[in-house]
Amino acid sequence: MGVKKYISEGQGLPNWDNPISHAVVVNNMCFVSGQLSLDCDGKYIEGSLLEEARQAFLNFFAALKNGGFNPDDIVTMDMAMLDISKLPEINQLYIELFPSYKRPARTIYQVDALPFGGKIKISGIAVQNVD
Amino acid sequence: MGVKKYISEGQGLPNWDNPISHAVVVNNMCFVSGQLSLDCDGKYIEGSLLEEARQAFLNFFAALKNGGFNPDDIVTMDMAMLDISKLPEINQLYIELFPSYKRPARTIYQVDALPFGGKIKISGIAVQNVD
Amino acid sequence: MGVKKYISEGQGLPNWDNPISHAVVVNNMCFVSGQLSLDCDGKYIEGSLLEEARQAFLNFFAALKNGGFNPDDIVTMDMAMLDISKLPEINQLYIELFPSYKRPARTIYQVDALPFGGKIKISGIAVQNVD
Repeated sequence: MGVKKYISEGQGLPNWDNPISHAVVVNNMCFVSGQLSLDCDGKYIEGSLLEEARQAFLNFFAALKNGGFNPDDIVTMDMAMLDISKLPEINQLYIELFPSYKRPARTIYQVDALPFGGKIKISGIAVQNVD
Repeated sequence: MGVKKYISEGQGLPNWDNPISHAVVVNNMCFVSGQLSLDCDGKYIEGSLLEEARQAFLNFFAALKNGGFNPDDIVTMDMAMLDISKLPEINQLYIELFPSYKRPARTIYQVDALPFGGKIKISGIAVQNVD
Repeated sequence: MGVKKYISEGQGLPNWDNPISHAVVVNNMCFVSGQLSLDCDGKYIEGSLLEEARQAFLNFFAALKNGGFNPDDIVTMDMAMLDISKLPEINQLYIELFPSYKRPARTIYQVDALPFGGKIKISGIAVQNVD
Protein backbone atom coordinates (compact mmCIF):
# COMPACT_ATOMS: atom_id res chain seq x y z
CA MET A 1 0.00 0.00 0.00
CA GLY A 2 2.99 2.25 -0.41
CA VAL A 3 4.75 4.71 1.85
CA LYS A 4 3.46 7.19 4.38
CA LYS A 5 2.25 10.59 3.20
CA TYR A 6 2.73 13.64 5.42
CA ILE A 7 0.29 16.44 4.55
CA SER A 8 1.85 19.64 5.82
CA GLU A 9 0.43 22.05 3.28
CA GLY A 10 -2.09 21.99 0.45
CA GLN A 11 -5.17 23.53 -1.09
CA GLY A 12 -7.54 24.93 1.51
CA LEU A 13 -5.23 24.16 4.40
CA PRO A 14 -4.19 26.76 6.97
CA ASN A 15 -0.59 27.77 6.72
CA TRP A 16 0.68 27.23 10.21
CA ASP A 17 3.89 27.35 12.18
CA ASN A 18 3.18 24.15 14.09
CA PRO A 19 5.87 21.54 13.48
CA ILE A 20 3.22 18.89 12.86
CA SER A 21 1.42 17.55 9.81
CA HIS A 22 -2.18 18.45 9.09
CA ALA A 23 -2.67 14.78 8.36
CA VAL A 24 -0.67 11.58 7.97
CA VAL A 25 -1.73 8.86 5.53
CA VAL A 26 -0.65 5.23 5.91
CA ASN A 27 -2.16 1.88 4.83
CA ASN A 28 -5.57 3.28 3.83
CA MET A 29 -5.83 5.30 7.03
CA CYS A 30 -5.66 9.08 7.44
CA PHE A 31 -4.92 10.61 10.86
CA VAL A 32 -5.98 14.27 11.02
CA SER A 33 -4.56 16.83 13.48
CA GLY A 34 -6.80 19.02 15.61
CA GLN A 35 -8.39 21.61 13.31
CA LEU A 36 -9.63 25.01 14.45
CA SER A 37 -11.39 27.96 12.87
CA LEU A 38 -8.35 29.21 10.96
CA ASP A 39 -8.21 30.77 7.50
CA CYS A 40 -5.64 29.80 4.86
CA ASP A 41 -3.12 32.21 6.35
CA GLY A 42 -3.42 30.46 9.69
CA LYS A 43 -5.28 33.44 11.18
CA TYR A 44 -7.96 32.65 13.72
CA ILE A 45 -11.47 33.55 12.52
CA GLU A 46 -13.56 34.37 15.56
CA GLY A 47 -17.23 33.59 15.22
CA SER A 48 -20.19 31.88 16.84
CA LEU A 49 -19.69 28.26 17.85
CA LEU A 50 -21.44 27.16 14.67
CA GLU A 51 -19.36 29.45 12.46
CA GLU A 52 -16.15 28.24 14.03
CA ALA A 53 -17.26 24.63 13.74
CA ARG A 54 -18.03 25.07 10.03
CA GLN A 55 -14.59 26.53 9.39
CA ALA A 56 -12.89 23.78 11.42
CA PHE A 57 -14.76 21.18 9.34
CA LEU A 58 -13.68 22.90 6.12
CA ASN A 59 -10.07 22.58 7.26
CA PHE A 60 -10.60 18.99 8.38
CA PHE A 61 -12.12 18.09 5.00
CA ALA A 62 -9.28 19.91 3.19
CA ALA A 63 -6.76 17.83 5.14
CA LEU A 64 -8.59 14.67 4.09
CA LYS A 65 -8.79 15.75 0.44
CA ASN A 66 -5.10 16.55 0.27
CA GLY A 67 -4.49 13.02 1.53
CA GLY A 68 -6.79 11.44 -1.04
CA PHE A 69 -9.68 10.90 1.36
CA ASN A 70 -13.17 12.33 1.64
CA PRO A 71 -15.69 12.94 4.46
CA ASP A 72 -17.34 9.58 3.75
CA ASP A 73 -14.17 7.87 4.97
CA ILE A 74 -14.27 9.36 8.48
CA VAL A 75 -14.70 6.64 11.08
CA THR A 76 -14.21 8.56 14.32
CA MET A 77 -13.75 12.13 15.54
CA ASP A 78 -12.61 13.72 18.77
CA MET A 79 -14.13 17.09 19.51
CA ALA A 80 -12.91 19.56 22.14
CA MET A 81 -15.25 22.42 22.98
CA LEU A 82 -15.50 25.05 25.69
CA ASP A 83 -19.13 24.38 26.56
CA ILE A 84 -20.69 20.98 25.95
CA SER A 85 -24.15 22.33 26.81
CA LYS A 86 -24.07 23.72 23.26
CA LEU A 87 -23.73 20.26 21.76
CA PRO A 88 -27.21 20.45 20.10
CA GLU A 89 -25.84 23.13 17.75
CA ILE A 90 -23.03 20.82 16.72
CA ASN A 91 -25.43 17.93 16.30
CA GLN A 92 -27.43 20.02 13.83
CA LEU A 93 -24.27 20.53 11.82
CA TYR A 94 -23.56 16.80 11.92
CA ILE A 95 -27.02 16.07 10.49
CA GLU A 96 -26.22 18.43 7.66
CA LEU A 97 -22.72 17.09 6.99
CA PHE A 98 -23.20 13.32 7.33
CA PRO A 99 -25.98 11.14 5.87
CA SER A 100 -27.87 9.26 8.59
CA TYR A 101 -26.50 5.89 7.46
CA LYS A 102 -22.85 7.00 7.47
CA ARG A 103 -22.27 8.71 10.78
CA PRO A 104 -18.81 8.55 12.35
CA ALA A 105 -18.20 7.57 15.96
CA ARG A 106 -17.40 10.55 18.18
CA THR A 107 -16.06 11.54 21.58
CA ILE A 108 -16.52 15.05 22.98
CA TYR A 109 -14.37 16.76 25.62
CA GLN A 110 -15.18 19.98 27.44
CA VAL A 111 -11.97 21.94 27.87
CA ASP A 112 -11.03 25.25 29.50
CA ALA A 113 -9.02 26.69 26.68
CA LEU A 114 -8.15 26.11 23.04
CA PRO A 115 -5.38 27.71 20.97
CA PHE A 116 -6.15 31.30 19.80
CA GLY A 117 -9.09 31.41 22.19
CA GLY A 118 -11.05 29.20 19.78
CA LYS A 119 -14.40 27.62 20.69
CA ILE A 120 -14.05 24.20 19.06
CA LYS A 121 -11.37 21.88 17.76
CA ILE A 122 -11.85 18.65 15.84
CA SER A 123 -9.50 15.78 15.08
CA GLY A 124 -10.13 12.30 13.76
CA ILE A 125 -9.37 9.23 11.72
CA ALA A 126 -10.55 8.27 8.24
CA VAL A 127 -10.22 4.76 6.84
CA GLN A 128 -10.87 3.45 3.36
CA ASN A 129 -12.09 -0.08 2.80
CA VAL A 130 -9.55 -2.67 1.81
CA ASP A 131 -11.16 -4.94 -0.76
CA MET B 1 -12.67 -7.17 4.16
CA GLY B 2 -15.92 -5.74 2.92
CA VAL B 3 -17.66 -2.44 3.52
CA LYS B 4 -17.94 -0.23 6.58
CA LYS B 5 -20.54 -1.03 9.21
CA TYR B 6 -22.18 1.81 11.14
CA ILE B 7 -23.61 0.63 14.46
CA SER B 8 -26.29 3.14 15.41
CA GLU B 9 -28.61 0.83 17.33
CA GLY B 10 -28.62 -2.74 18.59
CA GLN B 11 -29.08 -5.05 21.53
CA GLY B 12 -27.98 -3.49 24.80
CA LEU B 13 -27.20 -0.12 23.23
CA PRO B 14 -28.62 3.14 24.54
CA ASN B 15 -31.17 4.69 22.26
CA TRP B 16 -29.85 8.20 21.75
CA ASP B 17 -30.56 11.31 19.76
CA ASN B 18 -26.93 11.96 18.91
CA PRO B 19 -26.39 11.97 15.15
CA ILE B 20 -23.37 9.71 15.53
CA SER B 21 -22.79 5.98 15.46
CA HIS B 22 -22.15 3.99 18.62
CA ALA B 23 -19.35 2.33 16.69
CA VAL B 24 -17.94 2.12 13.18
CA VAL B 25 -16.36 -1.07 11.85
CA VAL B 26 -13.86 -1.11 8.99
CA ASN B 27 -11.00 -3.44 7.97
CA ASN B 28 -10.95 -5.46 11.22
CA MET B 29 -11.07 -2.32 13.34
CA CYS B 30 -13.92 -1.04 15.49
CA PHE B 31 -14.01 2.61 16.61
CA VAL B 32 -16.32 3.12 19.60
CA SER B 33 -17.93 6.45 20.56
CA GLY B 34 -17.73 7.87 24.06
CA GLN B 35 -19.98 5.73 26.28
CA LEU B 36 -21.60 6.97 29.49
CA SER B 37 -23.76 5.49 32.22
CA LEU B 38 -26.93 5.41 30.12
CA ASP B 39 -29.68 2.78 30.12
CA CYS B 40 -31.21 1.36 26.93
CA ASP B 41 -33.64 4.28 26.71
CA GLY B 42 -30.70 6.67 26.72
CA LYS B 43 -31.57 7.87 30.24
CA TYR B 44 -28.64 8.76 32.47
CA ILE B 45 -28.24 6.41 35.44
CA GLU B 46 -26.63 8.36 38.26
CA GLY B 47 -24.49 6.31 40.59
CA SER B 48 -21.12 6.08 42.27
CA LEU B 49 -18.08 6.36 40.01
CA LEU B 50 -17.77 2.59 39.98
CA GLU B 51 -21.46 2.04 39.19
CA GLU B 52 -21.32 4.53 36.36
CA ALA B 53 -18.12 3.00 35.05
CA ARG B 54 -19.67 -0.49 35.05
CA GLN B 55 -22.66 0.75 33.07
CA ALA B 56 -20.43 2.64 30.62
CA PHE B 57 -18.41 -0.55 30.08
CA LEU B 58 -21.63 -2.54 29.48
CA ASN B 59 -22.55 -0.06 26.75
CA PHE B 60 -19.01 -0.12 25.33
CA PHE B 61 -19.05 -3.92 25.19
CA ALA B 62 -22.54 -3.88 23.63
CA ALA B 63 -21.25 -1.56 20.92
CA LEU B 64 -18.37 -3.97 20.26
CA LYS B 65 -20.68 -7.00 20.19
CA ASN B 66 -23.06 -5.40 17.73
CA GLY B 67 -20.05 -4.81 15.50
CA GLY B 68 -18.86 -8.41 15.77
CA PHE B 69 -16.07 -7.66 18.27
CA ASN B 70 -15.49 -8.60 21.89
CA PRO B 71 -13.61 -7.09 24.87
CA ASP B 72 -10.53 -9.15 24.03
CA ASP B 73 -10.14 -7.12 20.86
CA ILE B 74 -9.76 -3.75 22.61
CA VAL B 75 -6.33 -2.26 21.97
CA THR B 76 -6.70 1.21 23.46
CA MET B 77 -9.18 3.27 25.46
CA ASP B 78 -9.58 6.95 26.25
CA MET B 79 -11.21 7.71 29.56
CA ALA B 80 -12.58 11.07 30.65
CA MET B 81 -13.38 11.45 34.33
CA LEU B 82 -14.15 14.30 36.71
CA ASP B 83 -11.62 13.35 39.33
CA ILE B 84 -8.49 11.40 38.45
CA SER B 85 -7.62 10.97 42.13
CA LYS B 86 -10.25 8.21 42.05
CA LEU B 87 -8.32 6.27 39.42
CA PRO B 88 -7.59 3.37 41.85
CA GLU B 89 -11.32 2.49 41.80
CA ILE B 90 -11.23 2.29 38.02
CA ASN B 91 -8.05 0.24 38.12
CA GLN B 92 -9.82 -2.32 40.31
CA LEU B 93 -12.51 -2.60 37.68
CA TYR B 94 -9.86 -3.06 34.98
CA ILE B 95 -8.33 -5.94 36.91
CA GLU B 96 -11.76 -7.55 37.00
CA LEU B 97 -12.57 -6.94 33.34
CA PHE B 98 -9.27 -7.70 31.60
CA PRO B 99 -6.92 -10.64 32.16
CA SER B 100 -3.43 -9.49 33.17
CA TYR B 101 -1.89 -10.66 29.90
CA LYS B 102 -4.43 -8.83 27.70
CA ARG B 103 -4.63 -5.31 29.02
CA PRO B 104 -5.42 -2.49 26.58
CA ALA B 105 -3.41 0.71 26.38
CA ARG B 106 -5.15 3.68 28.00
CA THR B 107 -5.10 7.44 28.32
CA ILE B 108 -7.04 9.25 31.04
CA TYR B 109 -8.23 12.85 30.99
CA GLN B 110 -9.60 14.83 33.91
CA VAL B 111 -12.43 17.02 32.65
CA ASP B 112 -14.74 19.59 34.22
CA ALA B 113 -17.98 18.30 32.82
CA LEU B 114 -19.47 15.36 30.97
CA PRO B 115 -22.87 15.09 29.28
CA PHE B 116 -25.82 14.54 31.67
CA GLY B 117 -23.55 15.40 34.60
CA GLY B 118 -21.95 11.96 34.27
CA LYS B 119 -18.81 10.97 36.18
CA ILE B 120 -16.98 8.94 33.54
CA LYS B 121 -16.95 8.42 29.78
CA ILE B 122 -15.00 5.81 27.83
CA SER B 123 -14.18 5.50 24.15
CA GLY B 124 -11.72 3.30 22.33
CA ILE B 125 -10.54 1.16 19.47
CA ALA B 126 -10.72 -2.61 19.03
CA VAL B 127 -8.72 -4.47 16.39
CA GLN B 128 -8.89 -8.10 15.32
CA ASN B 129 -5.80 -9.89 14.08
CA VAL B 130 -5.37 -10.24 10.37
CA ASP B 131 -3.93 -13.69 9.72
CA MET C 1 0.56 -10.60 10.70
CA GLY C 2 0.41 -12.70 13.81
CA VAL C 3 -1.10 -12.17 17.23
CA LYS C 4 -1.41 -9.12 19.45
CA LYS C 5 1.52 -8.11 21.62
CA TYR C 6 0.89 -6.50 25.01
CA ILE C 7 3.87 -4.47 26.22
CA SER C 8 3.55 -4.22 29.97
CA GLU C 9 7.22 -4.07 30.88
CA GLY C 10 10.53 -3.76 29.12
CA GLN C 11 13.80 -1.91 28.79
CA GLY C 12 13.46 1.78 29.64
CA LEU C 13 9.81 1.49 30.61
CA PRO C 14 8.45 2.76 33.91
CA ASN C 15 7.44 0.02 36.27
CA TRP C 16 3.89 0.94 37.15
CA ASP C 17 0.93 -0.39 39.07
CA ASN C 18 -1.58 0.54 36.41
CA PRO C 19 -3.43 -2.52 35.11
CA ILE C 20 -2.89 -1.39 31.54
CA SER C 21 -0.26 -2.05 28.90
CA HIS C 22 2.32 0.55 27.98
CA ALA C 23 1.54 -0.31 24.40
CA VAL C 24 -0.43 -2.83 22.36
CA VAL C 25 0.78 -4.02 18.96
CA VAL C 26 -1.55 -5.47 16.33
CA ASN C 27 -1.47 -5.67 12.51
CA ASN C 28 1.47 -3.27 12.06
CA MET C 29 -0.04 -0.74 14.46
CA CYS C 30 1.19 0.21 17.92
CA PHE C 31 -1.15 1.96 20.38
CA VAL C 32 0.76 3.71 23.17
CA SER C 33 -0.70 4.60 26.59
CA GLY C 34 -0.40 8.08 28.05
CA GLN C 35 3.23 8.58 29.10
CA LEU C 36 4.36 10.96 31.82
CA SER C 37 7.66 12.09 33.28
CA LEU C 38 8.29 8.87 35.22
CA ASP C 39 11.58 7.10 35.83
CA CYS C 40 12.06 3.35 35.46
CA ASP C 41 10.78 2.77 38.99
CA GLY C 42 7.56 4.57 38.10
CA LYS C 43 8.52 7.53 40.28
CA TYR C 44 7.44 10.95 39.05
CA ILE C 45 10.36 13.19 38.06
CA GLU C 46 9.30 16.78 38.60
CA GLY C 47 10.91 19.29 36.28
CA SER C 48 10.27 22.15 33.91
CA LEU C 49 7.70 21.54 31.18
CA LEU C 50 10.49 20.81 28.74
CA GLU C 51 12.27 18.42 31.11
CA GLU C 52 9.05 16.53 31.79
CA ALA C 53 8.23 16.42 28.09
CA ARG C 54 11.67 14.98 27.28
CA GLN C 55 11.23 12.24 29.86
CA ALA C 56 7.70 11.47 28.65
CA PHE C 57 9.04 11.15 25.10
CA LEU C 58 11.80 8.82 26.32
CA ASN C 59 9.13 6.59 27.83
CA PHE C 60 6.97 6.84 24.73
CA PHE C 61 9.91 5.86 22.51
CA ALA C 62 10.79 3.01 24.88
CA ALA C 63 7.24 1.70 24.58
CA LEU C 64 7.53 1.81 20.80
CA LYS C 65 10.92 0.10 20.80
CA ASN C 66 9.71 -2.72 23.03
CA GLY C 67 6.94 -3.26 20.50
CA GLY C 68 9.32 -3.30 17.54
CA PHE C 69 8.53 0.23 16.40
CA ASN C 70 10.53 3.44 16.23
CA PRO C 71 9.74 7.19 16.36
CA ASP C 72 9.61 7.32 12.55
CA ASP C 73 6.49 5.17 12.69
CA ILE C 74 4.42 7.61 14.76
CA VAL C 75 1.42 8.85 12.81
CA THR C 76 -0.49 10.76 15.46
CA MET C 77 -0.13 11.92 19.05
CA ASP C 78 -2.49 13.28 21.69
CA MET C 79 -0.93 15.64 24.17
CA ALA C 80 -2.47 16.77 27.44
CA MET C 81 -0.83 19.73 29.16
CA LEU C 82 -1.70 22.09 31.97
CA ASP C 83 -1.01 25.29 30.06
CA ILE C 84 -1.30 25.40 26.27
CA SER C 85 0.21 28.90 26.20
CA LYS C 86 3.53 27.10 26.63
CA LEU C 87 3.06 25.18 23.39
CA PRO C 88 6.02 26.97 21.70
CA GLU C 89 8.38 25.13 24.08
CA ILE C 90 6.91 21.82 23.01
CA ASN C 91 7.10 22.81 19.36
CA GLN C 92 10.84 23.41 19.75
CA LEU C 93 11.17 19.88 21.09
CA TYR C 94 9.17 18.54 18.13
CA ILE C 95 11.55 20.26 15.70
CA GLU C 96 14.41 18.51 17.45
CA LEU C 97 12.75 15.09 17.60
CA PHE C 98 11.10 14.82 14.19
CA PRO C 99 12.57 15.65 10.78
CA SER C 100 10.50 18.29 8.95
CA TYR C 101 9.32 15.82 6.33
CA LYS C 102 8.12 13.22 8.84
CA ARG C 103 6.01 15.05 11.35
CA PRO C 104 3.14 13.22 13.04
CA ALA C 105 -0.38 14.62 13.28
CA ARG C 106 -1.20 15.96 16.75
CA THR C 107 -4.04 17.11 18.97
CA ILE C 108 -3.42 19.06 22.16
CA TYR C 109 -5.71 19.32 25.18
CA GLN C 110 -5.39 21.73 28.08
CA VAL C 111 -6.35 19.90 31.26
CA ASP C 112 -6.63 20.87 34.93
CA ALA C 113 -4.74 17.97 36.38
CA LEU C 114 -2.54 15.05 35.40
CA PRO C 115 -1.50 12.03 37.49
CA PHE C 116 1.31 12.76 40.03
CA GLY C 117 0.84 16.48 39.45
CA GLY C 118 2.64 16.11 36.12
CA LYS C 119 2.79 18.90 33.54
CA ILE C 120 2.45 16.93 30.32
CA LYS C 121 1.23 13.54 29.11
CA ILE C 122 1.56 12.08 25.62
CA SER C 123 -0.15 9.15 23.94
CA GLY C 124 -0.33 8.12 20.33
CA ILE C 125 -0.41 5.63 17.49
CA ALA C 126 2.44 4.32 15.34
CA VAL C 127 1.88 2.45 12.09
CA GLN C 128 4.33 0.63 9.85
CA ASN C 129 3.80 0.47 6.11
CA VAL C 130 2.30 -2.69 4.72
CA ASP C 131 4.03 -3.44 1.43
